[in-house]
Order: sequence, then C-alpha cells, then structure tokens
Amino acid sequence: MRIAVVNGPNLQLLGQREPEIYGTSTLADINGELEASGKELGAQLEFFQSNSEGALLDYIAEAARRVDGFVVNPGALTHTSVALRDALVGVGRPFVEVHLSNPAARESFRQRSYLSGAALGVVSGFGPRSYRLGLEGLVAVLRAPQNPRASGRSD
Amino acid sequence: MRIAVVNGPNLQLLGQREPEIYGTSTLADINGELEASGKELGAQLEFFQSNSEGALLDYIAEAARRVDGFVVNPGALTHTSVALRDALVGVGRPFVEVHLSNPAARESFRQRSYLSGAALGVVSGFGPRSYRLGLEGLVAVLRAPQNPRASGRSD
Amino acid sequence: MRIAVVNGPNLQLLGQREPEIYGTSTLADINGELEASGKELGAQLEFFQSNSEGALLDYIAEAARRVDGFVVNPGALTHTSVALRDALVGVGRPFVEVHLSNPAARESFRQRSYLSGAALGVVSGFGPRSYRLGLEGLVAVLRAPQNPRASGRSD
Amino acid sequence: MRIAVVNGPNLQLLGQREPEIYGTSTLADINGELEASGKELGAQLEFFQSNSEGALLDYIAEAARRVDGFVVNPGALTHTSVALRDALVGVGRPFVEVHLSNPAARESFRQRSYLSGAALGVVSGFGPRSYRLGLEGLVAVLRAPQNPRASGRSD
Amino acid sequence: MRIAVVNGPNLQLLGQREPEIYGTSTLADINGELEASGKELGAQLEFFQSNSEGALLDYIAEAARRVDGFVVNPGALTHTSVALRDALVGVGRPFVEVHLSNPAARESFRQRSYLSGAALGVVSGFGPRSYRLGLEGLVAVLRAPQNPRASGRSD
Amino acid sequence: MRIAVVNGPNLQLLGQREPEIYGTSTLADINGELEASGKELGAQLEFFQSNSEGALLDYIAEAARRVDGFVVNPGALTHTSVALRDALVGVGRPFVEVHLSNPAARESFRQRSYLSGAALGVVSGFGPRSYRLGLEGLVAVLRAPQNPRASGRSD
Amino acid sequence: MRIAVVNGPNLQLLGQREPEIYGTSTLADINGELEASGKELGAQLEFFQSNSEGALLDYIAEAARRVDGFVVNPGALTHTSVALRDALVGVGRPFVEVHLSNPAARESFRQRSYLSGAALGVVSGFGPRSYRLGLEGLVAVLRAPQNPRASGRSD
Amino acid sequence: MRIAVVNGPNLQLLGQREPEIYGTSTLADINGELEASGKELGAQLEFFQSNSEGALLDYIAEAARRVDGFVVNPGALTHTSVALRDALVGVGRPFVEVHLSNPAARESFRQRSYLSGAALGVVSGFGPRSYRLGLEGLVAVLRAPQNPRASGRSD
Amino acid sequence: MRIAVVNGPNLQLLGQREPEIYGTSTLADINGELEASGKELGAQLEFFQSNSEGALLDYIAEAARRVDGFVVNPGALTHTSVALRDALVGVGRPFVEVHLSNPAARESFRQRSYLSGAALGVVSGFGPRSYRLGLEGLVAVLRAPQNPRASGRSD
Amino acid sequence: MRIAVVNGPNLQLLGQREPEIYGTSTLADINGELEASGKELGAQLEFFQSNSEGALLDYIAEAARRVDGFVVNPGALTHTSVALRDALVGVGRPFVEVHLSNPAARESFRQRSYLSGAALGVVSGFGPRSYRLGLEGLVAVLRAPQNPRASGRSD
Amino acid sequence: MRIAVVNGPNLQLLGQREPEIYGTSTLADINGELEASGKELGAQLEFFQSNSEGALLDYIAEAARRVDGFVVNPGALTHTSVALRDALVGVGRPFVEVHLSNPAARESFRQRSYLSGAALGVVSGFGPRSYRLGLEGLVAVLRAPQNPRASGRSD
Amino acid sequence: MRIAVVNGPNLQLLGQREPEIYGTSTLADINGELEASGKELGAQLEFFQSNSEGALLDYIAEAARRVDGFVVNPGALTHTSVALRDALVGVGRPFVEVHLSNPAARESFRQRSYLSGAALGVVSGFGPRSYRLGLEGLVAVLRAPQNPRASGRSD
Repeated sequence: MRIAVVNGPNLQLLGQREPEIYGTSTLADINGELEASGKELGAQLEFFQSNSEGALLDYIAEAARRVDGFVVNPGALTHTSVALRDALVGVGRPFVEVHLSNPAARESFRQRSYLSGAALGVVSGFGPRSYRLGLEGLVAVLRAPQNPRASGRSD
Repeated sequence: MRIAVVNGPNLQLLGQREPEIYGTSTLADINGELEASGKELGAQLEFFQSNSEGALLDYIAEAARRVDGFVVNPGALTHTSVALRDALVGVGRPFVEVHLSNPAARESFRQRSYLSGAALGVVSGFGPRSYRLGLEGLVAVLRAPQNPRASGRSD
Repeated sequence: MRIAVVNGPNLQLLGQREPEIYGTSTLADINGELEASGKELGAQLEFFQSNSEGALLDYIAEAARRVDGFVVNPGALTHTSVALRDALVGVGRPFVEVHLSNPAARESFRQRSYLSGAALGVVSGFGPRSYRLGLEGLVAVLRAPQNPRASGRSD
Repeated sequence: MRIAVVNGPNLQLLGQREPEIYGTSTLADINGELEASGKELGAQLEFFQSNSEGALLDYIAEAARRVDGFVVNPGALTHTSVALRDALVGVGRPFVEVHLSNPAARESFRQRSYLSGAALGVVSGFGPRSYRLGLEGLVAVLRAPQNPRASGRSD
Repeated sequence: MRIAVVNGPNLQLLGQREPEIYGTSTLADINGELEASGKELGAQLEFFQSNSEGALLDYIAEAARRVDGFVVNPGALTHTSVALRDALVGVGRPFVEVHLSNPAARESFRQRSYLSGAALGVVSGFGPRSYRLGLEGLVAVLRAPQNPRASGRSD
Repeated sequence: MRIAVVNGPNLQLLGQREPEIYGTSTLADINGELEASGKELGAQLEFFQSNSEGALLDYIAEAARRVDGFVVNPGALTHTSVALRDALVGVGRPFVEVHLSNPAARESFRQRSYLSGAALGVVSGFGPRSYRLGLEGLVAVLRAPQNPRASGRSD
Repeated sequence: MRIAVVNGPNLQLLGQREPEIYGTSTLADINGELEASGKELGAQLEFFQSNSEGALLDYIAEAARRVDGFVVNPGALTHTSVALRDALVGVGRPFVEVHLSNPAARESFRQRSYLSGAALGVVSGFGPRSYRLGLEGLVAVLRAPQNPRASGRSD
Repeated sequence: MRIAVVNGPNLQLLGQREPEIYGTSTLADINGELEASGKELGAQLEFFQSNSEGALLDYIAEAARRVDGFVVNPGALTHTSVALRDALVGVGRPFVEVHLSNPAARESFRQRSYLSGAALGVVSGFGPRSYRLGLEGLVAVLRAPQNPRASGRSD
Repeated sequence: MRIAVVNGPNLQLLGQREPEIYGTSTLADINGELEASGKELGAQLEFFQSNSEGALLDYIAEAARRVDGFVVNPGALTHTSVALRDALVGVGRPFVEVHLSNPAARESFRQRSYLSGAALGVVSGFGPRSYRLGLEGLVAVLRAPQNPRASGRSD
Repeated sequence: MRIAVVNGPNLQLLGQREPEIYGTSTLADINGELEASGKELGAQLEFFQSNSEGALLDYIAEAARRVDGFVVNPGALTHTSVALRDALVGVGRPFVEVHLSNPAARESFRQRSYLSGAALGVVSGFGPRSYRLGLEGLVAVLRAPQNPRASGRSD
Repeated sequence: MRIAVVNGPNLQLLGQREPEIYGTSTLADINGELEASGKELGAQLEFFQSNSEGALLDYIAEAARRVDGFVVNPGALTHTSVALRDALVGVGRPFVEVHLSNPAARESFRQRSYLSGAALGVVSGFGPRSYRLGLEGLVAVLRAPQNPRASGRSD
Repeated sequence: MRIAVVNGPNLQLLGQREPEIYGTSTLADINGELEASGKELGAQLEFFQSNSEGALLDYIAEAARRVDGFVVNPGALTHTSVALRDALVGVGRPFVEVHLSNPAARESFRQRSYLSGAALGVVSGFGPRSYRLGLEGLVAVLRAPQNPRASGRSD
C-alpha cells in the first residue's frame, strides 16, 4: 500500500522559526516519524509540500497513478480552494484531511472547509499526531472498506 | 489514566437493527474493542450511553471527578446542545469529539457543531475506528501536552 | 397493522388547564377518539407522551420493533431536535408529522421543522383532527405504497 | 356545504404522461374520487385547474360568492405567488393547502410557502390522498369551528 | 405569594469545583440567601434544578398549580429550548429570566434567547445577585401590575 | 459612592402625555424615587437626560471624573449608537443597561443592543423598577467585585 | 397629456365585498374620481385592471404607444414580478408606483418591491388618495422634468 | 389644522451650492411654496430643520402639543435613527415621510427606512413636489380618516 | 428532429421600439434567421412567444408531444417562475436556456435562475446569436448524448 | 483573427483517466477539434492549460498582446479567483466563459462565478461542444459588435 | 491650500485619561504636530472636534466654503452615520478617512464604514501618525489629481 | 532597517498598457520612486512581484529572515487568500496593506480583505502614493512602537 502525504501552504515554516513557540518539530521531523508509522502500518509513504496550489494539483494528478490514498493537510487552502477538492475527487482516490490545530476554535472564515465534504475522514487538533491518526484511519479503511455514511443518523 | 467514552442519542441502535446495512457491530462490540485498545494504550476506560441530554450532563459532572478526559460521540446533540458543550467545558477536562460518519458530507444542519470549538480535537468519518483514533490522540496529548493553537496559520 | 401515536413536550397540558381557552379535550380524550378511529381504519394504536427527548427516543427505538409506523406531534421539539429525526429515520419506519396549530402562522423560529424533510407526510392546523387525518393518511399509504416524490414538479 | 377544489400550474399533466412513473391517475380521476368523498362528507364540490395565475385569481374571486371554503394545490405558485395568498385572504373564505409530494424533502426554494401562513391547515406528502384528507379537515372545521392557534405552545 | 426558582443544566456545578475560580458559593448557598430575600419580600420560595429539559418541563407544569410566578436561570437551554418557553407560556404564570453572566458579552450563539421574548423581565450579569434582583422585580410586578410594553418607544 | 443615572432620547416624554396609557410617573417622579433608593443603598445619585447623542457623550466624559458607575437607559440609542458604547467603555467606569420595556418582545431591529456586550449587567422589562434593580445590582458589584464571566457555561 | 392607470391582481375586489370593512368605494368609483382629477390636471386618463401578469404586460406594451406615463398599483405583483418592471422600463415611459396601504407596515415579504427601483416616484398609505397624489406628481414631472437623483445625499 | 414640516440633516444645503446641478430652489424656497399650498389646503404650517437628531426630537416633542400631524423628510436619519421613529410614534400624531429622491434606486443601505413602518404614508421621488403631495395626503386623511391597512391584500 | 423555440415576457418588444438603441432586429427577424439555422442543422423549428406564464405552460405541455427539445429565453420569468421550471422538467424533454444579455452583469435579483439548475445547458450574452448557439448545442446533444455532469470537478 | 483558448486547473485530467466514465476525449482531442472549428470560422487559435493561477495570469497578460479575445474554461477558479477576472478585464480583451458541465446543477459553492459578470458571454453544459459554441459566439461578436446589455429587460 | 481636520465622538478623551494605557498625547498634541506637518506640506489647517453628529454636519457645511478638503476621523460614527457621508459628499470636497486603530481587527460591527465608499482614500492603524499620512495623501492628490479607480483590477 | 515591498497578481500590468487610461507609471517607476522614499526614511527596500500565490508565500518566508517588515499590495488576493495572511502572520513581521484604488468604492466582493485584520495598518485610494504613505507609516511604527488597539473606542 502506498500513501501520499501532502502539505499545503506555509507548512514548510513549521519548527524552523521561533521554536519556543511552535516547538522544534520541523516538517521533516514530522515526516520522519510518519514514515516510521507508515512502516509499522505496512504502508509506504511519499511526501510533498508546496506553497503553490498549482504545484499541489500537478502532484496529486501525477501521484494518483501510483498511490492508494492521500493524507492532506491543506493549510489555508482548506478554506479557499475548490480546485484542490476537485483534484482529489477527480483522481478517484480516498483522502483524509488533517489539521495540526482545531479550525473550529478559530476565526469564522476558518469554519468552512471545501475539502471535508469530499473527504473519507477528518482529523484535527492533535498537533503533529493528527497526521499519524489520519494515516492510521486511511490505512484501516483501505484494508477494510466500510460504509459509515449509510446511516440516517448524526453519529 | 482513566478515560470516559460517552455516546449520545440513538447510538444504542448500532448493529442491533438491519445488520445488512449498518454492519453487525453493536455499541457493545465497539466498546469491547475500544477497551482492548485502551489497555494497549495504558488507559482504563469507562462507558456511558444515553438518549437523554440530562443524563449525559449528570454523567459528565459525576465522571469528571475520576477521569482525565472524555471521548464523546454526541450523535445528533452535536448540532443542538449548548448544554453538552457547557458541561464538558465546565468540568475542566479535555475532550475529543468523534463521529462514525463525516457530517461535512451531509445535510446543512449537520454542518454546525456546538462542541468542536471547545474540543481538543475532532475525528470523523472512519466508522467505529473513529473512536480508537480519538482515544489514541487524547491519550497522547494527555501524556505530552502541546499547544497547536498557538500558530497563527491555518495548518 | 399497529401504529404508535407519539406526543412530545407540553402536550400533557392539553385541556387540563384553562378549558375556557384551550377547550376541554385532554390528551386522553384525543387519544380515546383516535383509538376509535384506528379501529375503524383497522389499525391498533398505542400511545406515548413525554416531556423528555431522551424518553421519546427510547420509546421510538423500542416501539419500532412492533409497530408499522408513527404518528408524531413533536411539540416544540419540531424546531430543535435533530435526534428525534434521527431516531425516526434510524428505526426505518414511516412516520407522519402532525400539529394541532399551523406553525407557518406563528413566530419565525417555528418555521423550521427538523422532521418534515424526513416525514412521509405532514398535517397541520386542524386541531385534534390533525391526528385523525395523519393516521388516516399513514394507514392508507402503508396499505398502498406510492411514490409521490418521483415528480419533478412542485405539486 | 360547497367547496371549491383548485389546482395550479402543471397539475393538468398528472397521469397523462409516462404512467409507468407517475401512475395512471389523471387529475380527472383524482377529482372523480374526491367528488365521491365529498358526497360522503356532505359537501358538494366544484373543480378548477389553470396554468395561469390570473385565471386562478379570477376564479377564486368569482367562486367565493358561492362556496364555503377552498382546497388548493397551488403547484409551483406555492413558492412564488403573493397574489394567490392575497386572493384567498381577500375573499374571506377558509382554505386548506394540499400537496401530493412533501416539499420539505425537496429543493430549498420549495421550502417557502406564501400560502401556508394564511391557510387553515396544510396537508402534504400523501399523494392523491392529500386532497381527501384536506377536504375532510376543511369540512370538519367548517362544521365545528375551533381555535387551535390560541395556544402559546408549539403543538 | 409563592415563587418557584428554577435552574437549568449544569447549574448544580456551581461552587463545587475549582472554588478559586468560580467562588465558593454553591447553588445551595445561593438558594439559601435567596430564601432569606424571599422572606424579606414576603414571598415563599421553592427550588428546582435539573439537567434534564424534560424534568424541567414536568416540574413547571406541576408547580404552576401552586406558584404565582417563576424565576428561571435556564442555563444553556436559553439558546436551544423552545419547549421551555412553551411550558412557561403554557402554564400562564409570569416568569423572569436571570443569568449569572452577561450572555451579550459571549459567543454569538449565546446572543439568542428563546425565553426573553416571553419573559416579564430579564436580569443578567450580576452574578448570584441576578437571582435576588429578578425575584425582587417579579414580586413587585405581581403586587402592582404594570404595562411597560404599551409604549411605542425603545425605552 | 456616586452613581450617574443617564436617560437617552425620548425619555423626557414619560408620564407627561396620555397618562391613562403610560401611567402618571414622569421621569422626575422616577428619578425622585430612585434618589430615595440611592440613599437607602448608600449611593449619591446624579441625573441626566438628553435627546442628543452628543450631549450624552459630553456628559459621560465629564461625569466619569466624579462618579463610580452609570445606570443607563439608552432609549433608542441602544440599537444605533456605537459612540455611546465607546464613551462608556472609554471612561473606564462600570455601567448597567436598563429598559422599562422588554426589547426582546418587540420589533427585530430592537433585538440588537450595542451596549449590552460591554455592560456589567442588563435589567429589562420591570417598568420604572428596572432602574431600581439596576442600581441595586451596580452598587452591590461596586462594593464586592465578582467575576461572573469566568465561567465557561451559559449560566 | 395622456396617462394610463394600471391596477394589478385582486384590485377588482375593492369595495365589492364586505363594504363595512373595506369601504364602499369600488375600483370603478376610484377610477371615476381619478378621471375627474385628471381633467383638473389637464390629463386624459385610460384605465386597465387585470389579475393576469401577462395581460398587464400586453397592455403596457400596447398603451405605451399612446400614453406619456403610467400610474401603477401593482398589487401583489409588487413583490414578485420582474417582468412588470421590465415591461415598464422597456417601453421607456416614466411611471409612478402607488399603494392604498403602506407595505412597510406589513409582512416582511412585502418589504421588497421590484418596481420601486425603476419608478419615477412612489406613493403609499393614503388609501384611494394615493392614486390622486401619484397622478399629480407624475403630471407635474412630465410638465417640468427634474433630476432629484443627482444628489449624493439621502434627502 | 396645523402641520409641522420637519427636515433632517443636510437639507439646509439645498440650492445653496452648485445650482447648475441641484437647481436653484433653496429649502426656504420650497418652504415658501409649501406654505402657499398649505393655505390652499386650509392648513397652517410651521417649519423646522436641524442637522442634529437630538434637536429634531426636542422639536417633535414640543411641537406635538400644537400640531395635528407632521410631514418629515428625515434625510439620512431615515436609515439610521430609531429615536426619530420613536419620537414620532411617542407623541401620537400621524406623520408622512417624504423624500426628494427615490431611495429605492440608490445604495443598498438606503433601502431600509426605520420610519416607513410607522408612517401614515410615504411619498418619494418627485423632487420638491414630494412635500406638497405628502402634505396634501396628510391633510386629506386628517379630514377623513380611513383604514387602508385593514385589507389582507397587497394593494 | 423538431425543436420548439420559446420566448417569455416582453420579448415581443424586441426591435419594434427605439431601433437606434435596441437594433432593428425584431423577434420575427431573429426567428427567421433561426429557422434557417435549424434547416442547416437538420432541425425543424416551431416558435412561441407569450407574456403570460400560463400560456407558456400550456404551450410547453402541448408542444412536448411533438418536439424533441426546447430552446427557451424565459425573459424575466428566469428569476421568478418555479412553474416554468416544473413544466419543462415535467414534460421530460431536454431544454436549453438562452439570454440575449448576460444576467451576471446586471442587478443582484437577476443572478438567480430557477431554470438553469434543470437545463441541459445555458448560453448568455451573445445577443440574437445566443439562440443560434443554444440551438446548435441542443441539436448536437440530442444526436450524441453525453454525460458531462458525471465529473466531480468544476470544469 | 487570433483567439486564445485557456483551460484552468484539473482540465489536463480530461479523458486520461477512467475513460468509461469521462469519455475518451482528452484535452488534446478537444483542442484538436476546436482548432478545426477555428479554421472553419477564420480564427487562428492558441492553447494554454495550467493548474496554477499565477501561470494563467502570466499567460493572459502576455497573450493579450497578440490575441483578439479569449475562450476560458476556468475550472474551479471560476468560484475562487478574483485575480483571473482582474487579469481578463485588465488586458482589455473580450472573453467568453465556458463549462463542460452545468454548474447551476451542482453544489451551492459552484453557483457563484467571479468571471461571468465581466464576460462577454457564458456557455455551459454542452460538454466539449461548449468550447465550440463559445468560440463561435466570440468570433461572431468580434466581427460584428453588438450592445445587448443596453436593454433594461431580463432577456 | 486649506484643509479641515475633523474629529468625531469621544476623540476629545485622547490622552486625558489613563495615560499609562493610551499614551500622553492629547488631541491638542496631535493637532499641534499635525499643524506643523501641514506647514511643511504647504497646507493651512483648521481643526474641529465634536461629540455631536449635528455639530459635525453644521461644521462641514460651513467649512466647505473655505477649505479644499477634509481629513476625517469619524470615531464611532464611521459605522452608524449615513448623514456624515452625505454631508461630505454633498459639499463636493474630497475627504480622507483616518483611524488611529485598525477597525478590521476589531468587533464585527466595526467592519462596516459608511464613509469609506465615498472617501478619496483611507488610512488606518498607525496611531496618531494616521492623520499625518492621510493629510500627506490628501495634499498630494489635491496637487496632482489622479484616477486610480479607473482600473478594473483589485490593486 | 530593511523593508520588503510585495506586489500581488496583475500589478506587473501597471502602466504598460493603455497609458492614456492608467497613466504611464509602470511598477518599475513606482518602485524607483519608492526606493528614493526609502532612502529618505532611512530604510533599504527590496521588491518582489508575482502573479503566483505560491511564489509570494515562498518569497515572504524567505525574505522574513532579513527584513523588518512588509509593504504589501495583495491585488486580487486581498479578497481570496487566507494563505497570504497566514504567511505574513506566520513569519512574525509587521506588515502594511496598501491599495492604489479604494476597494470600498467597488464591487461587494472587494469589500472583504483577509489581510486587513492582521495588518499593522491599511492605506488605500491614493494611487502610487499609497505605497509611499504605507512605507512611511511602517517605518515610523518600527522606530516607535505604539499600541493603538488598546483603546476600546472606534477611533
């Protein structure tokens, strides 16, 4: 099983500046730990980060030929990019949306996600661990497909 | 470490009816597997389900004296209960909101959660596994507090 | 054929207070007349009223094992309870929403019904007779299923 | 007692096209059955259908001189015609709004009815039987006036 | 004169936890002081608190037979319960809405009160003293009815 | 302790016209009774009324040098004056907002108060007694500061 | 100078029914008085009323060839007919919108007029006299064109 | 009969500046012509203009003792002053709202009038003649009261 | 192949008035050119214009028996007629919506089309040529059905 | 005449994946057919596709020096890019907006186009043929300028 | 060149109270520095501050006869005064809107400025220096008129 | 002191096209003049323009290591890019938002700025001089930090 981990705008800043505030984990650190988690879960990971929506779309279209799913932290594009949603839907691979922080606890313009409605699942608020949890969930579902939306209840 | 797993209205219906549609996992099955996960993660779990908002509030106030955090699937109360949010905030314990399905892919009145803004994290869309992922995240954060909201970026 | 007649919050007040204003029909009177109607229509009725959302959900889950459909006057929960909708949808039995008064002629917060969108049909404004009309419609449809929503027109 | 049954735009299409989808009941069939129901209930019916709002208004103004009430399926005018509401209110006769389908389960622009707020009662979702139920309710209320709106509760 | 003092969800938590933050006044303390105030004002008080909307509705219906008015701190139900409003209106007794805090200074979802529009008066923001002020106002109006709404001005 | 009682536009009309409707209490009468209440509570009062927003702002800036707090009935400025809020916040004295009537029971444009969000407390609906209750609450809080907003619950 | 006086849906009902409520002035009476006013003002009038939007459009297109302006009481079409606006704008003749009642004092759906934004002027609330005032204003402007909209102020 | 003609903010600018654009009629000219009209109609007029809301409220309260009604061009206060509405309603005299221009053809923030809903009638768009028409309508209604709002139709 | 070209309200005005502004093409001219285009494309056309919504509905229901699709310029009914949408959907024939102008560049109330959501395609802004382009598209699709909506992307 | 055909994000995916669903036409195929159409119409075409908004803006600025107009399928940028609109307006060349699908039949966030209001015309819903129709319309208008927006009607 | 510097409500409070918070610059200090800046820029300044909207309007109308432009800090009137906008537009002099703070970073009711849409330019957030910058910009434009709005781009 | 001047999409078009409309100042000209201003103010400037959001983010992250603040004209990204806001906030350097034109006087979709709420200050409407004013303000604040937001008033 092969999974692409995609990070959107500004995530390259993680840990590189003001470590007393944001911690010392860089995106490379997070990716390293995630790679280890992937191995544990039997999934081979590849990583991509870009500040450019276009580059993200290019990557998704190209990577979709070889991966089984995506773990995506769309950064600020969460709230503004219909194209990112369209790309992920268009390539026909399940994806999980993850966030380090909990957007529901922030400004009102961060309450709308163009991606969530098309995602397999969403994980937010656990810091770097959100990636690990999202990956774990994606791998599990790819192994044993489910149909949780069939329910007519708000569970 | 002690964690309470709280299920809101209608979740007692899981798996008991129409198994060809909803699967054969009952809430008891899910709780059983979760208990095993808890042991693995070094957390002792207790379980509560009620269709009554009042009973849920009573339970949260009482359980908060002995637990370190909550994993909550609020069911339909997600969208309508300010009291549930107030109880969880009022008892001063971190909580994780979990959903079997992905509310973002459903009716517009399911897009608003009164709980998310006060939650430590949110996990949705992974079916029964959402509980396991939420538990895992909660345990990890309780062990190693973080501050993911300090960031001024939408990550 | 067995039908459950469910009444939500405050309907126990009917006719017991200020009969010069609300009339002298108590909920028991209405239920009595409705039982007679049921016999006429070949349906055995059972009755439940509660001021507690939780108790209503418990009842619906339990009654659904033995009844073919529900006639529901949700009272004020019409406008605030997603859980009631979820319970009725979750148990997989058709239900009819009835109101003594006509909510469309009242405050704006009474214009939204969480139940109508999932109901087989809605009857409002005919006083106690709304129950009888709703029951009659439910029984008829249970006897001869139809598909009125197939139309693309607003009829 | 004399009642006018009024059908708005496109209802003349009923049953004439694609009977495998919409059933074989034409508007004439429905009216025929309704006439029988009327006799049973002691009410003499007259029928009018038009695709033209203006013709409907002309009819209502003229018929109001001889009828005691109206059963109206406004079709798509439900959502767009203030004039239809004004005509029915203006002639001072009670009216019942009926729908074959359940508009609450359809597009958002079908959620607003200009007529409901002025109607005696509303019946929707029971297919052709909605007319019969609406007629029954109207006849009952004309025989025994009530005041269900006096209540300050959402029943 | 007899007055019921009704407290909604989570108010049982007052003073029992984290006294350094919320003060050491429990709900029992507040009720004790209020009882003394009642005596001073010539009113006999009774007290009720519940986390359950249904239990609150049951209590209001029952207590209304013996009390002249209600002082209600609806807690979070302020913003979500049409049923509580309907019960208080339905039993035909004047009521005063009180809040320890000032909801107008909080989240936007706390800006809407379903009760205020039906209340005799509202008192908020004075901490435990809000109850005393509300009681005082209620007793005064019950003794000397007034008609402050007759004014066409925003005073 | 010194308190300023400030009345906004149109309050000079009280009791001077149509006493059969509005009662015979003029603003002078109300102020007289309030002065007596002040003495009882150990507070010296001063009074100001103006129809001019500018004069009210001038007065607040000047009076703030000698008073400990304000009781304000902003009249119609409640709904339209950001400047009044800014003045009261700017001078750094606590203030209480009072209303004779209950704005929540009136037109929708009276539902928004620019002042409430910055007020210590709000009292509305008790007629002239609203002033007395607001004064009493203000005096009590000035004597024994509290922190009712610290609560994360909607109490 | 020639002016067309156009009345929309339901205005034919004026005065013909329940004269104790609506007065005894029929539309014919109003038109008669208006014709006299026209003569006084040196304007020859013609009259048209229809319940049909289409017939009104046909009339406007045809009458525009011979008249200098229109006095229009659009009735309920005020709020729902873009076509009526388009016809009046399309034929290039100034028009005045008149109403017997004052729509601003009525239901919220009567607050929007599709015609006002394109009208020369609007007169509402004066009963039958609204026509006379509108006619007077139209005649005056046709005689002495003005440009009141040039102002950047809200006068 | 005595009528007060009240002009709000910025109307003193009329005709004094840029006569090639706004015409050469000053407010004094308009008032002069209006006084003549008043005589013709048997009404004695008095005039007041102020840029200050407070001064307008003072004037209305004082003038109401001697006049039978008001003709008001509220200028920009149309859209922002609840106090002006309250004053006019509070003094219990009928008033007519007039505008030189047609606010419906201007910016969206000019579409809301706080006064219209309480006015006897509204006249807009006829330039200086709007005053004359409004006066004429007011005088006529004061002479022969009517009840145009009794109608349930949008006429 | 047979196609009906339907024109809504006010389109009969085209070219008949003020040719210096609107050009000299009448609707007859446009229809003539369109008939030629139809021949070229192998489609036989028929034409209908009416100012009456009802007449348009009557025509659509009747014409649907003999035509394979519709080219519709709904004029102002675009924004106000649910019935037109229902008729076109109800008769089960594909239709193309065309506009001479580009409604997106006009007033906000012209931004909503009730028809677009049910149309096969939409062409706007090309003047009389919009008809030709819409016809061409309709004929092509009728010859070679496609499924462009299957895409999950915003193309 | 020279025309640029511009395709936005994700359109490179066309036909390359899941041909059983999206058909086998790639963007290259569509462009090939379009080039032939261009020749037929006497227009020389050039083609550009990018997933990057920035690259699209660069291209438009540069191409505008040599082309007479643009045919643009903005993909998801339709709903999110003000910059694309600004670029097209900024370079002063007419453009036509085309869509393979009909956005009006899709999610609500696809109902807003930032480009339509500035476009010469819009064509949507005809699959690959939308490009051909848009090109045809653009060429025709470039050859014979028109002024369809001069009309005050919604045609 | 002569420029009027106008300050709205509450700005007289600057620096006079709580200097540890607001700094020690009074409005007089700011005006003093600004006067020096004016000399540097070759502009003679005059200053006006009032808490009264009416006084501000009076001043603007009068000062406009002798000044070439205005620098306005409208204080809270920014968000509530259409009259201030109308006065500034009405006198036909360019004006610049300045703010000490950045309203975009504050409460939602401070996000709307009635003045900005009519201002030559806006400067906010630079503390007392905002005045200097606004003055500088105004003087520069008065010397060398420009047309920055001609652009169709969002620059 | 080192300041980066950042220009967003389409600003490279300035002055290069249609100089009779937009003036002959190119972005290079503006930057040249700005560099001179910088020298005067003791600030060394660097310049960056890109049509690509991603390239802008890359630049900001990289430049932040060497500059003390940013002057940003975000062009159309003002209204659509949360990522730009996040980058500027994320790098922890103050920034000033500048606009050549005054967005408040343009389309409604230009009224929302994602950047303003996080900016130190905003300058708009002064054409090329907006850059100079913004730079001057930024330099001044960097030299003498202030706290203008501490005020609770709308100044």
